Amino acid sequence: MRRFPQGRVDPADFELVESPVREPGEGEVLVRNEWLSLDPYMRLRMDPRRSYVEGLRPGDLMPGGTVGVVVASRDPTIPSGARVVGTRMGWQLWSCVPGSALRTITDNGVPSSTALGVCGMPGVTAHYGLFVVGRVQCGDTVVVSAASGAVGSVVGQLARIRGARAIGIAGGAAKCRYVVEELGFDNCIDHRSPDFETRLADATPGRVDVQFENVGGAVMDAVLARLNDYARIVLCGLVSEYEQRPVSGLRNTRELLVNRATLQGFIVSEHLDYWPGALEELAQWVRSGELRYREDVSDGLENAPAAFATMLHGGNFGKKLVRLGVEPVIEQGVQ
Amino acid sequence: MRRFPQGRVDPADFELVESPVREPGEGEVLVRNEWLSLDPYMRLRMDPRRSYVEGLRPGDLMPGGTVGVVVASRDPTIPSGARVVGTRMGWQLWSCVPGSALRTITDNGVPSSTALGVCGMPGVTAHYGLFVVGRVQCGDTVVVSAASGAVGSVVGQLARIRGARAIGIAGGAAKCRYVVEELGFDNCIDHRSPDFETRLADATPGRVDVQFENVGGAVMDAVLARLNDYARIVLCGLVSEYEQRPVSGLRNTRELLVNRATLQGFIVSEHLDYWPGALEELAQWVRSGELRYREDVSDGLENAPAAFATMLHGGNFGKKLVRLGVEPVIEQGVQ
Repeated sequence: MRRFPQGRVDPADFELVESPVREPGEGEVLVRNEWLSLDPYMRLRMDPRRSYVEGLRPGDLMPGGTVGVVVASRDPTIPSGARVVGTRMGWQLWSCVPGSALRTITDNGVPSSTALGVCGMPGVTAHYGLFVVGRVQCGDTVVVSAASGAVGSVVGQLARIRGARAIGIAGGAAKCRYVVEELGFDNCIDHRSPDFETRLADATPGRVDVQFENVGGAVMDAVLARLNDYARIVLCGLVSEYEQRPVSGLRNTRELLVNRATLQGFIVSEHLDYWPGALEELAQWVRSGELRYREDVSDGLENAPAAFATMLHGGNFGKKLVRLGVEPVIEQGVQ
Repeated sequence: MRRFPQGRVDPADFELVESPVREPGEGEVLVRNEWLSLDPYMRLRMDPRRSYVEGLRPGDLMPGGTVGVVVASRDPTIPSGARVVGTRMGWQLWSCVPGSALRTITDNGVPSSTALGVCGMPGVTAHYGLFVVGRVQCGDTVVVSAASGAVGSVVGQLARIRGARAIGIAGGAAKCRYVVEELGFDNCIDHRSPDFETRLADATPGRVDVQFENVGGAVMDAVLARLNDYARIVLCGLVSEYEQRPVSGLRNTRELLVNRATLQGFIVSEHLDYWPGALEELAQWVRSGELRYREDVSDGLENAPAAFATMLHGGNFGKKLVRLGVEPVIEQGVQ
């Protein structure tokens, strides 16, 4: 990150820097990254204000999860050649990190790129958020915003698996169609349609028991207006606000009071004990075909900034990934 | 209630109606009311929108808690002459209600009017909200808005009893002085002061663990900006919004996310099992002098509408009560 973005992210807020690849020290491994994950939380980090972790400073490496191959290891538990995933590798072609920061991807019958999506952080976020924070029950109505995205798409499918009704909110007819026809949600409402609020009300005649919130602002307010008694609001993200100054704000706080609702913010990386069981379950549902996903791939690290800026305004369709191509000459130079 | 208020409550939204006192039926008692409680939740009921209970309709009796004396009883558990408190008596001089809707006030060494305040619904609201919803711990910093009011004044004193820091927010220098000097809060910030946010930040160097919210709007936003990790927001009331169209709204939703906060709305009347223990503890603290209170009394049912309208904008100082004087001739006519 070259500088803090002013409002909307601009590719000029980033700088591509070349520097020598470091030799791994004791306990470290060197990874050649194949896939970089782009996620909305990154925008929250590109902000000088207090966040859940220390914010970035100009000149810092952009944080990010990657999938890659170990090319040199001084961690006895991770052999060279292993395929790994980790959240601390950042936006780079090669990463030298402690082996303890990595998870080895076993051959579990799903593509390795899913370790950044449905079978990775976004999938566990959906699993933990819906089941633990949202305490979804059979028969509940679940509304999830950004329903075609990496987290939202899993939320609605897990709700259905648990016996709940799943109502998505997405931007545009194509995404809404995908959410219903491919992912099997009961309904999906286009938040850009002029009668969005009426259509949302029609789709939730029994009101809303679990609101899985990824977007914030007017979309969040519209769902708040439909809350049921004792509703749970899973506050996972507020992507519509990350680039807005001043933010449009929430009007329907009253609904939280009169419905005796519970709203909870959470960060899935604080619940590491939860991951192994959730990951196993997610992979099983992917293999059985009960859990579907879609990836939206850009090529080349140099295109990550523009892809990221586009994603923050819904320009992606499915889990956003960057495929990292590395010139063989560089690869040989290190091995 | 003669009609729904348009924005601010107007005394002309009410009508004083005279009608014959009904004889109590089987299981009912007739109560001559002595004190009427005025509480902000009543404004929430004077609204055609969905609330936690069915809203009022024009022509309905205003709901409200009273303390009174039983003058005729067909409930064998409640003798004539008993002093009782109940939430279903409404804004009236005489109430004929099921005995099951009443609680007999025993001679527990505190004035009977406190059964509508510190030793009644507002006190239990503070107790349940702070201890159960807010899960306050020794060493926490608690911020409570409307700190000189019926609920807020108890919240801060209970926080101190539990070993937490208590920071109040109130309107005007006199109330702030009372909250610190009489009630023993650690600090109290005047939300009308031009440097309110700076002073709130200075008063919460370790940030805020429990936000007990009675007010909403800009006051709520200012406290949200000071949240600590894993903060609990006890959503008890939003009095600044009840008469506002459109509401000013909340800007700092982001703070709920990045601090992994939990916000919960609650209604104390849904937790009746909790009342007896809390009431006993509150009365004990009042008797020992650890828990102080202040009452703001208006005289005469005919003055309740104006007193209520004034209270909604902070015109009261302490628990708002109406003393109900009944002509002896009417009393004799029934006995």
